[in-house]
Amino acid sequence: MTADRATPAAPTDPADLVLTEVRLTPVLIADPPLLNTQGVHQPHTPRLIIEVVTAGGATGLGETYGDTEYLELARPLAEAMIGRPVTDLNGLPALAARVCGDSPAATGADAVDAGGLRGVRTADKLRLSVLSGFEVACLDAWGHATGLPVHALLGGKVRDRVEYSAYLFYRWARHPGGRGEPDDWGAALDPAGIVAQARRFADTYGFTSFKLKGGVYEPAREVAAVRALAAAFPGRPLRLDPNGAWSVPVSLEVAHELRDVLEYLEDPVSGTARMAEVAAGTDLPLATNMCVTTFDEIAEAFTRGAVQVVLADHHYWGGLRNTRELAAVCRTFGVGLSMHSNTHLGISLAAMTHVAATVPHLDYACDTHYPWQREDVLTERLAFRDGHLDVSDAPGLGVTLDRDRLAALHRRWLADDGGQRVRDDAAAMRVADPGWVTPAVPRW
Amino acid sequence: MTADRATPAAPTDPADLVLTEVRLTPVLIADPPLLNTQGVHQPHTPRLIIEVVTAGGATGLGETYGDTEYLELARPLAEAMIGRPVTDLNGLPALAARVCGDSPAATGADAVDAGGLRGVRTADKLRLSVLSGFEVACLDAWGHATGLPVHALLGGKVRDRVEYSAYLFYRWARHPGGRGEPDDWGAALDPAGIVAQARRFADTYGFTSFKLKGGVYEPAREVAAVRALAAAFPGRPLRLDPNGAWSVPVSLEVAHELRDVLEYLEDPVSGTARMAEVAAGTDLPLATNMCVTTFDEIAEAFTRGAVQVVLADHHYWGGLRNTRELAAVCRTFGVGLSMHSNTHLGISLAAMTHVAATVPHLDYACDTHYPWQREDVLTERLAFRDGHLDVSDAPGLGVTLDRDRLAALHRRWLADDGGQRVRDDAAAMRVADPGWVTPAVPRW
Repeated sequence: MTADRATPAAPTDPADLVLTEVRLTPVLIADPPLLNTQGVHQPHTPRLIIEVVTAGGATGLGETYGDTEYLELARPLAEAMIGRPVTDLNGLPALAARVCGDSPAATGADAVDAGGLRGVRTADKLRLSVLSGFEVACLDAWGHATGLPVHALLGGKVRDRVEYSAYLFYRWARHPGGRGEPDDWGAALDPAGIVAQARRFADTYGFTSFKLKGGVYEPAREVAAVRALAAAFPGRPLRLDPNGAWSVPVSLEVAHELRDVLEYLEDPVSGTARMAEVAAGTDLPLATNMCVTTFDEIAEAFTRGAVQVVLADHHYWGGLRNTRELAAVCRTFGVGLSMHSNTHLGISLAAMTHVAATVPHLDYACDTHYPWQREDVLTERLAFRDGHLDVSDAPGLGVTLDRDRLAALHRRWLADDGGQRVRDDAAAMRVADPGWVTPAVPRW
Repeated sequence: MTADRATPAAPTDPADLVLTEVRLTPVLIADPPLLNTQGVHQPHTPRLIIEVVTAGGATGLGETYGDTEYLELARPLAEAMIGRPVTDLNGLPALAARVCGDSPAATGADAVDAGGLRGVRTADKLRLSVLSGFEVACLDAWGHATGLPVHALLGGKVRDRVEYSAYLFYRWARHPGGRGEPDDWGAALDPAGIVAQARRFADTYGFTSFKLKGGVYEPAREVAAVRALAAAFPGRPLRLDPNGAWSVPVSLEVAHELRDVLEYLEDPVSGTARMAEVAAGTDLPLATNMCVTTFDEIAEAFTRGAVQVVLADHHYWGGLRNTRELAAVCRTFGVGLSMHSNTHLGISLAAMTHVAATVPHLDYACDTHYPWQREDVLTERLAFRDGHLDVSDAPGLGVTLDRDRLAALHRRWLADDGGQRVRDDAAAMRVADPGWVTPAVPRW
């Protein structure tokens, strides 16, 4: 057995890894009436399901934002992917820049992204979010073609399961105007409601850490909710995320009041400069998925000590491999790492779990919005046990598309009058409160 | 063709990717009498050739430092690799820390590495250098098993060839005492000799940029050599690397004198603090492979603006995947990237070429010491054309071991009395100059 003998039997023919087909299916998925500082979730939210097929017959699944502006970028990228091998991932950003560069959606949108609560919107970020879905689909197909799980394609898992955190929201029982599909969670508008919600999350999924989406009510009311959580779950890691709605003084007050129970305070203020001010005034770690959302934003934030934890999101950062690079940058600068989640389906949750499994210094339980999504396009939902997801060792992501469900959710998208094809939490809020406008920050 | 059908025909069985055998072969390879600030290269230098074999019969090659202290770490790591899949790379640092942690070579060696000119020596750096050879061997075997080139396993090449730079040395015609194997390059001890050497490099290999190893003579003499190169090759990128031998004032003087012809000045002084001082006083970019050689050293150096170009070396950084992470950190902080090279064989050059091919913002032609190594363990030497190496699309690294050559170079290692089993440029210099001691820095 020597290194100079011929390659052993039956490796994959690289020609089999070339993409021959890319399918895009926009869907609308049910979303509960969850409140945040900008408004309330619409009854349905758009997602884009990406399917790729290789010459050898391997298939892959990806998922990303489905808002119209993302779809407009995804279509030319899908065409441009044909003929490329699924392994050709380092070239994706340049490809996307070339084929999506002149899309109207990708230019001039230099404003805060209202729907996504994901900081300033730029053409780069839109492109990276779109290509993240293609990258995941390529990795899934590559895994199917070679028999390897996605985590192995990322260099192998360093843990067998990934811990997630309960994601608590102030919420109404129903969407205003009777829209959407009802659920049985009921309203949560006060500390008792938040604790009851947390209890159900803990009992159903085994989560042992809790994040409250704040910025909805005046800070004292949200502080009271966190205190109630601390009393109900003594010693458990808690987090509060007002999505940048507060001023620096208010943030420092809350940090001081909750310093004994919070694991970290997430985006109390908007922008790196204000985050740095808050960070300078408290020992409580500050986390973000708003002021550090691109590689370009890192140097200033890290150099100024503005953030102590980055909540990675492979959609923002351009895929699983870029997420690993973000993790390396964080590790290098002593910044903690966890993961952000918003309205998404099981494909993205599986992708997130694979990459999370490969990062040695994942310091905190990851966020997950998934329990709020009762609909999915998979034959089998991913199941939390003891607050964790097992890392799949099956080929690719280890998930299977349910074509009937995909078709049904796509029909809902087709039937929509356009009102929900772009996430708009302020518009949803105006159904209940016609005078609502997106609050300026700092709101308090 | 749907994503929920069974995986297509004949993917690799993951069990086939498990390592069943790891072989370590130390060798001594011929090295010319090249001068640097610490002394002169010995007639032979140790390298370690690593061969891995998987359950499915795929083989892989790796290469790293062969000095005794590295060998002592490699042996327990080789044993511990058995039974692990070649894809399990993220876990290598923890494995190496566990099995190599108590090796005498890995502890207490908190001194400058005299032979390697690679900055402060630490247990971490020794371990990373050793595991880099295993990582490359795993990637090579993984590539052979799945039919993919190493660059594809790293996410795909973004260029078809990688540019290299000529690596000029002051040198003697022969090793002192008639030791070693002679070559036909002759001596190069003055500007005319350096220009003649550069001319031969340009004519033979097509290199169009030139690096001079300095720190050998007083700075004015080396400045004169660079000026002679600039006159002989007008407009070509030039570099000068005194390996930290200069003081801050001398560095600033040289930077000023050569600012119109140098692409960058490499490690003029030792240590991040002094590099930052020099950087503050010149617009000439400073490059390093001495003060930033680990992830731990990055934050201070980048925050202080001490270096503008990092010369990556996959041996230092723990493999090709870590090199990509280093590249991501550099890109994020606006720091340029190129690659370092010292005495190594074609396996490492191939590995370096694969990873270099995958990094979009490789800003400079890479160093290569390879033309000085007339011996190799490959059936076919890698061949520069127009100053570039083509990126192989063959499975794995695309190189083939010549077992007879390996055996011959191993016999030389076995026959050595121990004097060359650790690289020691000062010891080699003492053969010519018995009073020689490694100069303190700053030397000038």
